[in-house]
Amino acid sequence: MDKAERWLEETLQYRFNDVALLQLALTHRSARKQNNERLEFLGDAVLDVVVSEVVYLARPGASEGDLSKLRASLVKTGSLARLALDLGLGDYLILGSGEQKSGGHRRESILADGMEALFGAVFLDGGIEAATTLINRVFQDRYETLPDEKDLRDSKTRLQEWLQARKMSLPEYDLVAETGKDHRKMFSVACTVTEVSLVTEGTSTTRRKAEQKAARAMLEILAEKNA
Amino acid sequence: MDKAERWLEETLQYRFNDVALLQLALTHRSARKQNNERLEFLGDAVLDVVVSEVVYLARPGASEGDLSKLRASLVKTGSLARLALDLGLGDYLILGSGEQKSGGHRRESILADGMEALFGAVFLDGGIEAATTLINRVFQDRYETLPDEKDLRDSKTRLQEWLQARKMSLPEYDLVAETGKDHRKMFSVACTVTEVSLVTEGTSTTRRKAEQKAARAMLEILAEKNA
Repeated sequence: MDKAERWLEETLQYRFNDVALLQLALTHRSARKQNNERLEFLGDAVLDVVVSEVVYLARPGASEGDLSKLRASLVKTGSLARLALDLGLGDYLILGSGEQKSGGHRRESILADGMEALFGAVFLDGGIEAATTLINRVFQDRYETLPDEKDLRDSKTRLQEWLQARKMSLPEYDLVAETGKDHRKMFSVACTVTEVSLVTEGTSTTRRKAEQKAARAMLEILAEKNA
Repeated sequence: MDKAERWLEETLQYRFNDVALLQLALTHRSARKQNNERLEFLGDAVLDVVVSEVVYLARPGASEGDLSKLRASLVKTGSLARLALDLGLGDYLILGSGEQKSGGHRRESILADGMEALFGAVFLDGGIEAATTLINRVFQDRYETLPDEKDLRDSKTRLQEWLQARKMSLPEYDLVAETGKDHRKMFSVACTVTEVSLVTEGTSTTRRKAEQKAARAMLEILAEKNA
């Protein structure tokens, strides 16, 4: 039995019927034309449905928007890469020599894609039940520390909710500066909450991001004043 | 047995254990606070994984990008709404009075969301096997007429492939006009294929879209010349 198979059996408690699928799942596109990209497509969908069911059942009061955010917090690239590191996936990835030399087995996107490809391979090899069992096992700790969905909302939404809960009127956002030109523009937005005479400012590459920054700054001040 | 249950049993050959789930799946947010939005979240993921497996197995040579396009062609709002119309779902949707009067039971987004919610409800009620069976049954005709993945590629990609297949050099895209201001800008782009001395133009709200239009116009001329 090769070392990847042993790792999978010991760490993930899964044994492949078709070991070629495991090899394919571990093969990055830098190594070979026959690589894990198609399995990643499949595994991404498998992971989504498994995690969707978990958050749906875990949060009966959450809106579909909040469910999406909860799911995204679990399956986003950074989270999957973290999971891959915890499991030691990087040691078994098959990379091209260039990627190998430049530390590809520690690169977030490569780790996350490999994780998804592995889920896709288990799905093809053992069916949806096997994939569900494996995914739920490796996500168990994350499920137990699932964030409050409210904390995942964006700053503008949270600021609005904070003010509404206190019967205060909504904040105003005004563009106060636009500097640089064309593809290098920067936007500065002021967020004003009239009832407490507070103004914060946010600057970023898009108007929307600048508004979010200004809202976050406002939330921090309000939370401090209220503490 | 109520008429929605009968319809489901006759048309989709599925019988709910928990009929409340069927009612929830058919309830649009205009009718009630307890509506089908959460089930739609779940059904969307269920549909994705079922269709992903089908296109994965049906097109062993397709790249993951082409697989995504094939899947999207099956599950996009318009396709789901068409499916809902074919099945007669609209007659069983529970809408608020405003939506009812304005023809909500024929609205694409409401039909598509209802279809996804129904898949989500079957998944919760009967498990992934039942949902897979039902989805594959209602999509059977669509699977048989699955487009060639190459036809789903965008116009710029197809133009590039067309030219490369004939060892011709790549087209050039130039911005030739930018009219209107701020949020109402229109862009005109010229697409030039030097070797055949052809220029086409595309105009749209973004530069990217204008390029696609120009490329499509070029493809049409080239196809005609070659016919």
